[in-house]
Amino acid sequence: MIRWANMNAIILSTGTELTTGQCVDTNSAWLSAALGRFGVRVIRHVTVGDDIQDIRQAMGEALDSTDLVVATGGLGPTADDLTRDALAEAIEQPLEENAEALGQIRAIFERWQRPWHEANRVQAMIPRGCTVIPNPRGTAPGIWYHTASTDLFVLPGVPAEMRAMFAAAVVPVVEKRCGGARTERARLPCFGISEAKLGELIQDLMVRGRNPLVGTTASGGVISVRLVAWGKDEAEAKRLLADDISEVRRRLGSVVFGERDDTLEGVVGQMLLERHLTIATAESCTGGLLAKRLTDVPGSSAYFLRGYVTYANEAKSELLGVPPELIMSKGAVSEEVAAAMATGCRAAAGSDLGVGITGIAGPTGGQPPEKPVGLVYIALADSGGVEVKRILFGEHLVRSEIRDRACKTALNLIRLRL
Amino acid sequence: MIRWANMNAIILSTGTELTTGQCVDTNSAWLSAALGRFGVRVIRHVTVGDDIQDIRQAMGEALDSTDLVVATGGLGPTADDLTRDALAEAIEQPLEENAEALGQIRAIFERWQRPWHEANRVQAMIPRGCTVIPNPRGTAPGIWYHTASTDLFVLPGVPAEMRAMFAAAVVPVVEKRCGGARTERARLPCFGISEAKLGELIQDLMVRGRNPLVGTTASGGVISVRLVAWGKDEAEAKRLLADDISEVRRRLGSVVFGERDDTLEGVVGQMLLERHLTIATAESCTGGLLAKRLTDVPGSSAYFLRGYVTYANEAKSELLGVPPELIMSKGAVSEEVAAAMATGCRAAAGSDLGVGITGIAGPTGGQPPEKPVGLVYIALADSGGVEVKRILFGEHLVRSEIRDRACKTALNLIRLRL
Repeated sequence: MIRWANMNAIILSTGTELTTGQCVDTNSAWLSAALGRFGVRVIRHVTVGDDIQDIRQAMGEALDSTDLVVATGGLGPTADDLTRDALAEAIEQPLEENAEALGQIRAIFERWQRPWHEANRVQAMIPRGCTVIPNPRGTAPGIWYHTASTDLFVLPGVPAEMRAMFAAAVVPVVEKRCGGARTERARLPCFGISEAKLGELIQDLMVRGRNPLVGTTASGGVISVRLVAWGKDEAEAKRLLADDISEVRRRLGSVVFGERDDTLEGVVGQMLLERHLTIATAESCTGGLLAKRLTDVPGSSAYFLRGYVTYANEAKSELLGVPPELIMSKGAVSEEVAAAMATGCRAAAGSDLGVGITGIAGPTGGQPPEKPVGLVYIALADSGGVEVKRILFGEHLVRSEIRDRACKTALNLIRLRL
Repeated sequence: MIRWANMNAIILSTGTELTTGQCVDTNSAWLSAALGRFGVRVIRHVTVGDDIQDIRQAMGEALDSTDLVVATGGLGPTADDLTRDALAEAIEQPLEENAEALGQIRAIFERWQRPWHEANRVQAMIPRGCTVIPNPRGTAPGIWYHTASTDLFVLPGVPAEMRAMFAAAVVPVVEKRCGGARTERARLPCFGISEAKLGELIQDLMVRGRNPLVGTTASGGVISVRLVAWGKDEAEAKRLLADDISEVRRRLGSVVFGERDDTLEGVVGQMLLERHLTIATAESCTGGLLAKRLTDVPGSSAYFLRGYVTYANEAKSELLGVPPELIMSKGAVSEEVAAAMATGCRAAAGSDLGVGITGIAGPTGGQPPEKPVGLVYIALADSGGVEVKRILFGEHLVRSEIRDRACKTALNLIRLRL
């Protein structure tokens, strides 16, 4: 059972760019997850525009109903930056120029060699009795309002500044008030299994209210098992999490391809590097996407020798040695051509591994029932021979999704071979 | 001057996945922009978890303070879907099984050939006096609560369902209440100019409070000029917008590469198609990304013949005929090698155009000061010869950004040539 610390929080975002829908608010989700780590329960997100009445009212309501308020945005030097004024009104204190804040702002201008404008002084105005939070990455200092029962933090809206100041100023206060309780999170990315099938294998762990809490999410063919463990301290949370990670890995076996933010191309790259193997690719329907993914990884020049994007049949024959008769008799989208592309690019490049992909990504070009849109052949050649996988992606997938899934399937094939 | 209609709105989102930060709420931004089109001013977004008290309280507050409330989420069939119950409590009406809603839900199950569970009946429970909103894409009907002064809509949280139901049920009501006033939006994507320089050229149009409102945003090297026009009816808004689009296009000339969601690869593909020209690519540091972008476009097989990803020097010589001595003397990252790659792939493919890209995407491999990370040469060959562009991307860009910008610069070079 996940037990929340005795602390509720409200996240308040300000900015007319948010209430007009020009920007999506990502700060609130980030702050909620960050506070959740300490067992703080976020009960509400509120977003208002750059209007002093609206901000003051939202701040007042938040202060009346929770122990902790984290507000972001509206700390800049221009006329529509009103959070300082709204806070001053909400807590009924006058704004005063703060010497410490002014010094920090001036220091930033000097460091960045930017000309000083008197308008920037406004960023040093802080309500009486509040504490200044230094901003290591920008000119807007944050503000901490503290009473015996309540803490309200105002941070800039720029995510990089907000996150750094959250870590420096908010985390110590929350840690102290929550008494060491922690939640720890993990993600195990999986490929080559349906979400339903995976769910069956770990059904008894996915019980509501269990600790750790185990759930699954699916995105772009990758199924992620997500775990959240709660402990009375960090060590307990980590131990519970590690136990469940082992159990999930034991049950799911090789479909788990990594941890945290691991990608298939990153994992495959690491394996190739460790085994001193090289690779070459020959792509038709994926048009270079597999080469692009493999070379997304820094240092990939150590194992990626070359890639062919052979869209035209002539290119397949001329560059990869696929016999024109084979293309004529079996069709460009066939098991035989995929295999010839894989062995052909491996031979031409002199690489240890060769990958061939041919298929119909759509929306046109399908010839049902034998060769509908979504039919893809993926071949992997090495010194032992060539293996071809036939996949039929469903009608519900569009061109970009078919290309994406075909590349992931190829990467997974390489991973399992290695 | 943009004038808002006399109508304020609050957007309410429900879901513990939002208040715990597992998901970012994108519905509120979408709804705000959609309502803005009719001149509705969104004064607040509120997000609460799957807690009946929290939802009821947020609904009550929203109904007390605005004319229009749009709520999303919590309409599913499981125990944590509580929006129906919260609405019933907020408006003090009992929940009743609605025959119309039940019929719609049963029809969806039959159409999808899914087994019927009695648990799904709960989705047909609607507070007395409310109207059912059919869901064309899912099983959860929406709910419309209407009084003389107030409209509250509850829609599902799944974006595709929410958007379809917003168009069908919310738009007609808002149109009627707002009396025909409209805002119209446009975007002109530009490439090959800095945001500051572009801003100077249209400075007098970017005045606060002007109608149309003109602004710029930058993302991934593409600068977008965004325009919002307000009119007493749709025709006036469209006319004002069209006038400003002409003026911006006149001033910016060829840096404007399209409209709305146009991409460089889409525009280039259209040009190649219209002129019956073909293209081939030879990539080093971009590793297939340019081929991938070109073949992202459906129908690109008509003009994209083949792509080479020549990471290794041997591949450059063997496949593209780049003399090994040239690579030795000038280096793989040089004007001469880029040119040889472009002419080599054009000759090998027999295409009208050939593109060669070589550079250092980092994070390692730089040899400052002559060849630092971020140095890229892009060559474009046609029957008239070869043109090479040298670009030095700044230190603030990471590997993926350097690869992205190099591809966009190549696409823009092709566009300007055509």
